[in-house]
Amino acid sequence: MAGGARRSILPPMSLDPAFSLRVPDGDNLPRRVCDHCGFVAYENPKIVVGSVARFEDRILLCRRAIEPGRGLWTIPAGYLELNETPEAGALREAFEEAGATMRIERLLSIYSVPRISQVQLIFRARLVEPKIEAGPESLDVQLVTPDDIPWGDLAFPSVHWALRHDIEAEAGAPPIPFGNPGGEGGERMPDGRLVADEAL
Amino acid sequence: MAGGARRSILPPMSLDPAFSLRVPDGDNLPRRVCDHCGFVAYENPKIVVGSVARFEDRILLCRRAIEPGRGLWTIPAGYLELNETPEAGALREAFEEAGATMRIERLLSIYSVPRISQVQLIFRARLVEPKIEAGPESLDVQLVTPDDIPWGDLAFPSVHWALRHDIEAEAGAPPIPFGNPGGEGGERMPDGRLVADEAL
Repeated sequence: MAGGARRSILPPMSLDPAFSLRVPDGDNLPRRVCDHCGFVAYENPKIVVGSVARFEDRILLCRRAIEPGRGLWTIPAGYLELNETPEAGALREAFEEAGATMRIERLLSIYSVPRISQVQLIFRARLVEPKIEAGPESLDVQLVTPDDIPWGDLAFPSVHWALRHDIEAEAGAPPIPFGNPGGEGGERMPDGRLVADEAL
Repeated sequence: MAGGARRSILPPMSLDPAFSLRVPDGDNLPRRVCDHCGFVAYENPKIVVGSVARFEDRILLCRRAIEPGRGLWTIPAGYLELNETPEAGALREAFEEAGATMRIERLLSIYSVPRISQVQLIFRARLVEPKIEAGPESLDVQLVTPDDIPWGDLAFPSVHWALRHDIEAEAGAPPIPFGNPGGEGGERMPDGRLVADEAL
């Protein structure tokens, strides 16, 4: 009710958003500053949290309903929200995108994609039950064995890396987090194809 | 030159910044929206990168020149910038705050402080040379042996955690990243004192 009352007294929005790059006082880098009111829109790298979630020997994959990568397959992942732990964020994304209930086992990997200012924290997880259901951002959800992973139809390089690293972890690799494969910055898929900017 | 020219044609900023919480179209959480122009100021958790940096058996500490925690000791750390890898950010912060040149050895720990929406990535690092110098955000910089760490005068719980974890790593703990000590969310120092909000 308070929200409704507040909304009704807002002035009409009569100006177009207009920001210029300037160095604010006490800072040493240009930031986006509103031309109308001086608001400084600090931009920081974003944290993506996600999981390679298994039920028995099968891995949860989601077919994306949104761009970029609509129609391609991914693991449940998305942006960490304010006041959320990475583990809680990974659980939330799996529920939102695949209706999945799971428990986190451990951190699998940390990837850095500086081109798009992302740091990704990917966990190993176990589904509590095999019940899954496509959420609004998914066209389909499936539990697939590692042999059935559609390697040629994955949405992003980091999805490829995470699945490979999870398979290595399952095969007994010690529980040190994996990072970007050597020299990779997330510009291309392992088969060399350039990718569109990764946004989850 | 282009920046100067552009700055000169900016309109005067005649409005006060004014934002209201609303749920943008296609979103499911309230965000800050500019009352004047509709700009959505998405806020995301921030990534802090830092290091426990050693030269021989001594650890680099900085005495903070800024609030919160002015006069208290910390490790070199700060916010990751856009298009920066976590490793590059940790190297930059050590140079800015302590004039230190170092190399990263490995990831030491990942801490989560959801109350203030921070995820911290802390590295183990080695100084290339013992030459250090206080930067603008430091009152003093010192290389101290573990026995001389001023445990009672550290700025933040996560500084305490990182130093403890680095000492455990030096003593042979396996190279799995440490996380928050059990049940801790960063509200208090290990001796029970409540802390001011942690901002680096």
